[in-house]
Amino acid sequence: MTSSANVRDPASYRALVHPPGRRYVEALDQRALPHAVISVKIATADAAAMAIRTMWVRGAPLIGAVGAYGLALAIDHDASDDALFKAHAALDATRPTAVNLRWALDRIRDAVLPLEASARADVAWREADAIAAEDEAINHAIGLHGLALLRQVASRRSGPVRVMTHCNAGALATCGWGTATAPLFLAHAEGMSLQVWISETRPRLQGANLTAWEMSRRGVPNTLFADAASALMMRRGDVDIVIVGADRVAGNRDVGNKIGTYAKALAAHDNGVPFYVALPSPTFDAKLASGDAIPIETRSPDEILTVSGRDGYGQTATVSIAPPGARAVNYAFDVTPARLITGLITERGVAAADRAALAAMFPERFE
Amino acid sequence: MTSSANVRDPASYRALVHPPGRRYVEALDQRALPHAVISVKIATADAAAMAIRTMWVRGAPLIGAVGAYGLALAIDHDASDDALFKAHAALDATRPTAVNLRWALDRIRDAVLPLEASARADVAWREADAIAAEDEAINHAIGLHGLALLRQVASRRSGPVRVMTHCNAGALATCGWGTATAPLFLAHAEGMSLQVWISETRPRLQGANLTAWEMSRRGVPNTLFADAASALMMRRGDVDIVIVGADRVAGNRDVGNKIGTYAKALAAHDNGVPFYVALPSPTFDAKLASGDAIPIETRSPDEILTVSGRDGYGQTATVSIAPPGARAVNYAFDVTPARLITGLITERGVAAADRAALAAMFPERFE
Repeated sequence: MTSSANVRDPASYRALVHPPGRRYVEALDQRALPHAVISVKIATADAAAMAIRTMWVRGAPLIGAVGAYGLALAIDHDASDDALFKAHAALDATRPTAVNLRWALDRIRDAVLPLEASARADVAWREADAIAAEDEAINHAIGLHGLALLRQVASRRSGPVRVMTHCNAGALATCGWGTATAPLFLAHAEGMSLQVWISETRPRLQGANLTAWEMSRRGVPNTLFADAASALMMRRGDVDIVIVGADRVAGNRDVGNKIGTYAKALAAHDNGVPFYVALPSPTFDAKLASGDAIPIETRSPDEILTVSGRDGYGQTATVSIAPPGARAVNYAFDVTPARLITGLITERGVAAADRAALAAMFPERFE
Repeated sequence: MTSSANVRDPASYRALVHPPGRRYVEALDQRALPHAVISVKIATADAAAMAIRTMWVRGAPLIGAVGAYGLALAIDHDASDDALFKAHAALDATRPTAVNLRWALDRIRDAVLPLEASARADVAWREADAIAAEDEAINHAIGLHGLALLRQVASRRSGPVRVMTHCNAGALATCGWGTATAPLFLAHAEGMSLQVWISETRPRLQGANLTAWEMSRRGVPNTLFADAASALMMRRGDVDIVIVGADRVAGNRDVGNKIGTYAKALAAHDNGVPFYVALPSPTFDAKLASGDAIPIETRSPDEILTVSGRDGYGQTATVSIAPPGARAVNYAFDVTPARLITGLITERGVAAADRAALAAMFPERFE
């Protein structure tokens, strides 16, 4: 692994900060973006759970890190086994689909359980810091492997490399760089010409609210479009490569990710557009036989029936878009079959979505 | 054809009304739905053009009828050849994708051109009335053929027949019954249990604003969902049949329709869900070799960057959902390849999307 100076995301914003020596973390309240940049202090396990549940923070790697700090905060308060297990369960119950949360909570628990209660809090904080630092380094490595793919595209065509992404698998979803965005930020930094197509990502509009903001903050040319337009844009030949993130990858390499990912993969397949999933290895859940076993979070119908944004007076406002009494169903994630995936961009390289390739790359996860 | 009493849509609302003997029409301002039901008088050709361009009225069959009345209004004002051609061109330029508009304008023009100027207006109004009446009767016939498909589904399963639709191919898009919705309204009237899945249809939300309103007005159980969720819902096995409308069908049976239709067809194909397109024969444009020749309307980026609805005070409000200065691209339609289509539901029956089947059914259009 390269030195920590190299892997540090130079962005002027960070989704999560642990001020050195302090027993709290600061997170961006992502519900306020892009209209306001608001940092909130998370100083209790309950606050961490609420931040995850109500999506002040979101993104599989980021909720893993916030969960880890949340468990450290719980241990600060009460280091007994009983309290530890209760806090673990409470934090784990906040969001069901991403496996990184459970992975991070288990890692903190396993690190402190063998210790005396009095020694647990310091170790928990150190382990949470390690999880956050590793996430940033992992994403940088994902960025380098993805950058090689983008360079191949650039070598085959003149004009910008046209990358489609979905939702926000950006620095805001992680402890730095993002997963799907890391290759883009590194490519932009080395002067590659890019055109990033961002689907708005209804219902919560993370593409419009978050990814467009990140791209613009970093000077990367980007254009929003309606989720339903992905297939047409690929058919028009406007897309060179698709890179999305992942919330959980099953043992058969089916990918759980933001609702709309499966539709993009189908469109890419139908139009011969390479479709890549960028993910850190904590997103693998080899215990699940297939994507059918990935729990799909169902969220409030209100997210479908209303839209929030900034009104003409500069205030945050929510408008109803459906008739009074309308019903809605709100699946937050879907599952993309492995057969539609060109490759997985991981911190150890790009692998085909087949068992042999992944077992060779991550023998500890795919025995 | 059955008697006109049978083919009359019994709905309490109508998208377009020509009060007998009057030289104007009344149309619902569909931008106000579902929050307010506002009827506007269209008494000049310019008003008709504006109503189509700004989408007070929309839907391929409806803009055909409004265009026809618009041309009658122009002839009322000036029945010369010169004025006729100018008004035809102006009305034809309002929306590019649906072919029904051009078809209706040509029909009025061809009916009046051989006549003395003084005789033209009465004939134009009669012809426009005929177009509107035929549209309603055609949609009723589409409804009967689609109803037979729904009965087949109902006979194979217990519980409601679960139909997915997109955008609004409803009574609001036509002079009565709708195209994709006609089978649903007839099925509901005969007591069939239905569950209608309606995609909200960003950016203009015709599914949420219009189709959900129509279904609720008629008592048909319906549920909204985000456009991006179509594929997951089919993978879950929640959808028995997809029925959508069409704006233009090319000679090779590729279908131009609301953005997002192609993605739904891909998802249906991948999951073995029957995918039907309901259309009146004026939607055929056999002169176009393939769907690649269908002009795709590109609308204002503002439709992507903002959302309009009803705020907490009951007022119509528009909110921005993207960072200041964000860019967007807004393709309003897409093209679904014929290979993904199970069948076309027309006023003469259900046909496979192949040339022989259609030529047998519509010899005058597919010689």
